[in-house]
Amino acid sequence: MSKGSLFVISGPSGTGKGTVCAKLLAEDNIFLSISATTRDMRVGEAEGVTYYYTTTEKFEKMIENGEMLEYAVYGGNYYGTPKKAVTDMLDSGKNVILEIEPQGALKVKAQMPEAILIFVVPPSIAELRKRLTERGREDDAEIERRINAAKWEFSQSPKYNYVIVNDDLDTCVKDTLSIIKSANDRQQMIEKLLSEI
Amino acid sequence: MSKGSLFVISGPSGTGKGTVCAKLLAEDNIFLSISATTRDMRVGEAEGVTYYYTTTEKFEKMIENGEMLEYAVYGGNYYGTPKKAVTDMLDSGKNVILEIEPQGALKVKAQMPEAILIFVVPPSIAELRKRLTERGREDDAEIERRINAAKWEFSQSPKYNYVIVNDDLDTCVKDTLSIIKSANDRQQMIEKLLSEI
Repeated sequence: MSKGSLFVISGPSGTGKGTVCAKLLAEDNIFLSISATTRDMRVGEAEGVTYYYTTTEKFEKMIENGEMLEYAVYGGNYYGTPKKAVTDMLDSGKNVILEIEPQGALKVKAQMPEAILIFVVPPSIAELRKRLTERGREDDAEIERRINAAKWEFSQSPKYNYVIVNDDLDTCVKDTLSIIKSANDRQQMIEKLLSEI
Repeated sequence: MSKGSLFVISGPSGTGKGTVCAKLLAEDNIFLSISATTRDMRVGEAEGVTYYYTTTEKFEKMIENGEMLEYAVYGGNYYGTPKKAVTDMLDSGKNVILEIEPQGALKVKAQMPEAILIFVVPPSIAELRKRLTERGREDDAEIERRINAAKWEFSQSPKYNYVIVNDDLDTCVKDTLSIIKSANDRQQMIEKLLSEI
């Protein structure tokens, strides 16, 4: 069995990367990485299924040791992606997806150059503004701030492996699936060649 | 006019990357970067056409200043790729190809993360051995040394943007051209989005 690949799905706020990821997870052999958190376990959750539950002290030790691919703080608790959780899944042949914002995506690439970075862009800025407005989570000032942040994010796009336009959702998902297939084919080809030496 | 992209064509010795590059140069808007050298100009050569001719002192100063994307010494002379020669061509909308061995390719990527690295592999190790034997440039021991070196090179393949199999030359060239087209489309898309902010 060949190793799986890590796909980091990123892009400016409002491009619909979350919806793309949700569709991808419905496919065979594509999984979300399991995050670690310092918050308490809730009813219906399970260790290693919903999260890896840990203490603040241990979480901070992992950050210090470079064992976190990326992390953030929400509501006083840490949330992050332990590198080992990802590499274990890859080693067992699973494809792993990670949906994070552009700054985090570039940090993951710096630590795992083999990560395949996919940058999801809107078909136009007018459409991006429309989507941000329609979802109604942010006020006008915040929407303009996000669009302005996209400027820096777009300028970083050459560091991504792929740029896909999310105009029609199904086409966008199909494009992403063909990227995943081609990464798996490539992994198999390299493993075949290495086995022949 | 959109910026051009830099394509670094690399792969183990004997995979036929030189032949692929020669075919690509016959296409519109694809150019080889012009190297700098410390060797004397020969009859029929011209400054900035065949090479940029310079002194050993200046060449070493450029290495020191990080102005060389990569360089090597042959027959007591330096040969290398000045970063500025490449970026000037890209800025003028040209696609630039650089054919170098894997270690050099990774050095270019470290300096220019936007470079698109294409790893050319043979369909099998048996075929690689056959090609190296047929071109008759190396003895058996050297051929085995090269195949062994390919082991490390294959293991570096995740750092490349693309892996293409050179089984049938025309297919391989066609695959590379579609990579070049998709990079140009992507550049145009990002420039369009940036112009709308």
